[in-house]
Amino acid sequence: MKKVGIIGGTGYTGGELARILCTHPDIEIVSMTSRQNTGKKVSDVHSYLDGYLDIEFSEKISREIDLAFVATPHGVAMKEVPSLLESGIKCIDLSGDYRLHDVKTYELWYGHEHTDVENLQDAVYGLPELFRDEIKGSDLVANPGCYATATILACAPLVNAGVANDDIFVDAKSGTSGAGMVPTVRTHHSYCGESIIPYSVGTHRHTPEIEMVLNKFTGKSPDVLFVPNLVPIVRGILSSCYFTLKEPMSPEEVTAIYKKQYDGERFVHVTSDASISSVVASNHAQVSVSTIGNKVIAFGAIDNLVKGASGQAIQCMNLMLGLNETAGLNAPGLGV
Amino acid sequence: MKKVGIIGGTGYTGGELARILCTHPDIEIVSMTSRQNTGKKVSDVHSYLDGYLDIEFSEKISREIDLAFVATPHGVAMKEVPSLLESGIKCIDLSGDYRLHDVKTYELWYGHEHTDVENLQDAVYGLPELFRDEIKGSDLVANPGCYATATILACAPLVNAGVANDDIFVDAKSGTSGAGMVPTVRTHHSYCGESIIPYSVGTHRHTPEIEMVLNKFTGKSPDVLFVPNLVPIVRGILSSCYFTLKEPMSPEEVTAIYKKQYDGERFVHVTSDASISSVVASNHAQVSVSTIGNKVIAFGAIDNLVKGASGQAIQCMNLMLGLNETAGLNAPGLGV
Amino acid sequence: MKKVGIIGGTGYTGGELARILCTHPDIEIVSMTSRQNTGKKVSDVHSYLDGYLDIEFSEKISREIDLAFVATPHGVAMKEVPSLLESGIKCIDLSGDYRLHDVKTYELWYGHEHTDVENLQDAVYGLPELFRDEIKGSDLVANPGCYATATILACAPLVNAGVANDDIFVDAKSGTSGAGMVPTVRTHHSYCGESIIPYSVGTHRHTPEIEMVLNKFTGKSPDVLFVPNLVPIVRGILSSCYFTLKEPMSPEEVTAIYKKQYDGERFVHVTSDASISSVVASNHAQVSVSTIGNKVIAFGAIDNLVKGASGQAIQCMNLMLGLNETAGLNAPGLGV
Amino acid sequence: MKKVGIIGGTGYTGGELARILCTHPDIEIVSMTSRQNTGKKVSDVHSYLDGYLDIEFSEKISREIDLAFVATPHGVAMKEVPSLLESGIKCIDLSGDYRLHDVKTYELWYGHEHTDVENLQDAVYGLPELFRDEIKGSDLVANPGCYATATILACAPLVNAGVANDDIFVDAKSGTSGAGMVPTVRTHHSYCGESIIPYSVGTHRHTPEIEMVLNKFTGKSPDVLFVPNLVPIVRGILSSCYFTLKEPMSPEEVTAIYKKQYDGERFVHVTSDASISSVVASNHAQVSVSTIGNKVIAFGAIDNLVKGASGQAIQCMNLMLGLNETAGLNAPGLGV
Repeated sequence: MKKVGIIGGTGYTGGELARILCTHPDIEIVSMTSRQNTGKKVSDVHSYLDGYLDIEFSEKISREIDLAFVATPHGVAMKEVPSLLESGIKCIDLSGDYRLHDVKTYELWYGHEHTDVENLQDAVYGLPELFRDEIKGSDLVANPGCYATATILACAPLVNAGVANDDIFVDAKSGTSGAGMVPTVRTHHSYCGESIIPYSVGTHRHTPEIEMVLNKFTGKSPDVLFVPNLVPIVRGILSSCYFTLKEPMSPEEVTAIYKKQYDGERFVHVTSDASISSVVASNHAQVSVSTIGNKVIAFGAIDNLVKGASGQAIQCMNLMLGLNETAGLNAPGLGV
Repeated sequence: MKKVGIIGGTGYTGGELARILCTHPDIEIVSMTSRQNTGKKVSDVHSYLDGYLDIEFSEKISREIDLAFVATPHGVAMKEVPSLLESGIKCIDLSGDYRLHDVKTYELWYGHEHTDVENLQDAVYGLPELFRDEIKGSDLVANPGCYATATILACAPLVNAGVANDDIFVDAKSGTSGAGMVPTVRTHHSYCGESIIPYSVGTHRHTPEIEMVLNKFTGKSPDVLFVPNLVPIVRGILSSCYFTLKEPMSPEEVTAIYKKQYDGERFVHVTSDASISSVVASNHAQVSVSTIGNKVIAFGAIDNLVKGASGQAIQCMNLMLGLNETAGLNAPGLGV
Repeated sequence: MKKVGIIGGTGYTGGELARILCTHPDIEIVSMTSRQNTGKKVSDVHSYLDGYLDIEFSEKISREIDLAFVATPHGVAMKEVPSLLESGIKCIDLSGDYRLHDVKTYELWYGHEHTDVENLQDAVYGLPELFRDEIKGSDLVANPGCYATATILACAPLVNAGVANDDIFVDAKSGTSGAGMVPTVRTHHSYCGESIIPYSVGTHRHTPEIEMVLNKFTGKSPDVLFVPNLVPIVRGILSSCYFTLKEPMSPEEVTAIYKKQYDGERFVHVTSDASISSVVASNHAQVSVSTIGNKVIAFGAIDNLVKGASGQAIQCMNLMLGLNETAGLNAPGLGV
Repeated sequence: MKKVGIIGGTGYTGGELARILCTHPDIEIVSMTSRQNTGKKVSDVHSYLDGYLDIEFSEKISREIDLAFVATPHGVAMKEVPSLLESGIKCIDLSGDYRLHDVKTYELWYGHEHTDVENLQDAVYGLPELFRDEIKGSDLVANPGCYATATILACAPLVNAGVANDDIFVDAKSGTSGAGMVPTVRTHHSYCGESIIPYSVGTHRHTPEIEMVLNKFTGKSPDVLFVPNLVPIVRGILSSCYFTLKEPMSPEEVTAIYKKQYDGERFVHVTSDASISSVVASNHAQVSVSTIGNKVIAFGAIDNLVKGASGQAIQCMNLMLGLNETAGLNAPGLGV
């Protein structure tokens, strides 16, 4: 059994890590931190863990662990990671701190200095379907953003194939759990419960993340207008990505590009209709693509807390620790 | 045209007062206060009022008004009301400050001292279907609570008829707008969006309010267990009230009691199936009643922000100012 | 008082017409038809009309009317309209039967023959903000589709100004009431309640309608990929329209185009954030526009049953009957 | 590996059985029937099973199985069960056909003749927390109704202890998936999405089921008024059960009764606040109880498709086949 710890165990991604890991066959959670809940039983705070996890929240993370999940806000993670790595503890950061390799880009979009530039260079972007080998050998993985995961999975095949023009419009819809557990005006039920709310139009931090990754395929950055929308569901993201083709292609040709890209992948399914319901509560993603004339729309559907956060982090952990990539992640989507 | 002001114009009930009053044929809103939005155009804060109301939020309420709506939190209203009354301005308080005539009961349930005991004695409970004449002659009306309105309308006929036993169970379901506009854990969408959340079981402040009013019919207090539930809708309350009968009665006899009680009322409809959808966005209430053996369930359905708050306050205002009781309130429910 | 009738009074748009018209100062509803509810009181079927409308559903429409609303499915309306027009009754058709002036386009997208080609030529597209004068003089108005209304209002200024390229991507989100009152798999709550469901990708019938109208501004058809999405709200459409600019423009220049287009319009508001909540239950629309580099996103928000259907039809009726354009439509949006 | 079949594999409970069983360590699904989908791949119909289950729907169930789940409508199951039992195949019926031991009661509430009275006598009510030993030895288990499960779990301790009066009011709230996959008016999103809909007041078929089971503890039937409500969530039931006590008791004494009843149970948790969110997507139930004066309210929360249907059926299967009772059911609730 490998031992892991979770820094920031009160929030949604911390709780979701514990929910999945508590039935993982090869993992023991030995330490979870929380400032506000120090000393409380984890299962008293997260009552769904009653009978599954019998530890208390601590202030500091144990050092007797093989790997630490850092589930803290942006700006906090980069203060935790260096000493963990020095102690020989592998790290998976679920915040944005290590996602953007270019420090200037980070500082521009996140609005504060990056204090761990050294490790930033070595961090691997934790999307296993694209960067599996790098993740296996890494000590520090930057877990992708939820929107970025859905969007990149939907866009990568077409960008990789080089058949689309550079302008991409991404209209992404997310359930409210993506905003975390702290109440805000935008996630107040009577504000968002019967509305569709676009926000951070053209200014969302997942924009440079998407561009950076797609850029790896093309050598030049596609020009992405990323528009996130809050929708009144709890879990799930549907990312709708609009392209124009350089040359006419048949729908079958475009679909074949997608089938080929994800052939053999356990968690990414190319379907006729990507559906949130089919993947919710699981680490699966569904991708579908429609071609109409010279235009293409590609859809990516995930559970933002699983494939969009904690599940993908565990998938990376499995790779980093030499375990079966799908261990602990064998649940299918709920369907209903 | 009568002139009115709204103290506390940023919140939901303040905004809802303005929404209804801005098309009222006999009323001009001349003043709205807001601490946080002082100096801003009201229609910049409430964009649905663009083209309807061309005033700015002020810090203090104008004294050039016939009537003031006090839409502030509990404890604040009783600091505003005395000087308004002294200035000859009629008041309708939408908070709980003047609802409970017994000062000890107030202080027990609200947890602080009542600083305006004198006016408390004279305040009239603003449920026109039960206390129309008192409201007409009053300078200070305590507008009923939202849950209390739905529950009292459903219970009053049976209690008034004296045919039910004293024990009443009330299982009330409310949309989230009843909790106001300030974000909280309970109204955070990802917390409440796919759940039904009972809260304040047996301790909700509308309990003594319901008991006080029902007591007026019986001379002795019924024993109400009031259980509110937050449900993931924005507007609407359904209050389900459970009784046992003293003596067997037919369903027709029980229904007749309800029909008689509300005969001729414009806003209260005795139907076969009380429905939130049929009254939402209107000042109407629907009441229905089912009798099964010795048990009775009575349902009351309202829009919590209209008949449960601002609409009812305007209905009271109409009575206090000698206007047509239904003026400005002629919208039917949405239905869908 | 003008007299009107509603053909197809059971469905959502028929009920919504009655809901709005029953408090219209200049209109009397004298006749409503329904096959399934013939002989029943309208207010027994639509209980929100109790106290507002005291007529029964009939099988045939009265001919003693000035204007008929035809709220029947596609294909039925064109069988009703000719004889009404011959009887000197003005008609507003809420179906798609008279929207597409080109009969071949109609037959291609609707899949059946058009049996009233003669009147099709004369029908006016009922979007008052664009075709006010034509509507005033018309006997037959084709009321726009809900998605088409939101989309055209968002796109028209930019297309009209000639500053955008021809490729337009429209990602539209609609509440479920847009699908009508007949239960289907897609609108089954447990299917759609926690999901975002794109459908009819590139094949939705509002596509040619949008292209036809935008074409009037440019003389050549823009190339629209229209993707509708079902979202789990009841009322409301947000249409998100993506453009690239021909030449760089500042955000202020683009916004100015929108402000100019809708200057003086009572029902269309150019705001910073188009919001469904602010227009729901009203005939208002909000439009907002963001410019990021060479890309523009324009948003249009409406209540699909009001500005997207019955409210807009009443706005047209007012124009056709020489009444005040805003009569009966004075309700602001709910806001919450 | 034990082999099982599912009769009626298209519907929600059939799909949910497959979802859970496809990762069960000791079970192989060898046969699923569907009239409408005969010949199709199961994972083409239930796309969340892609990669998990590689069989096709058949018209007839295989006889090479140890146990059959009968997930057909009421009235159909009793036509399937006799021959299965004769073939030596154990059966778990998820419909209501074998729940009510008294044939007259069955025919009264279900409105048709019972054609398998013989097996009806021997069927065991499949609520393991109350009838574990009987289930272990049974060849035919009647899987409890979803509402009945939540309600009985909440009521049994108090009824069993004999401290409450006979009159019980049950106000139960269910997500829409409990109504199955066939679209209806009541589950049409625009009808139910912003409403709370009580239905079958005093006439729901789970009423006699609840009374029958509670009766086993008391020797006399409690008098239950059962009122189900449809709420706009997809999964989950909260059953709120109202009692009066025979003699005053402290909250601690009442809670102790509950703690004692469910001591050692893996799937039933006595908590301070029973929460749908904490059990959703799992076989867990949470029960909480509040005592206010002489009144008690007990809450039961479950996922209606898991502990309220397919999960509980699998729990029964484990007992009937001599497997670990919790096998395949180790997922905690989602929490969010």
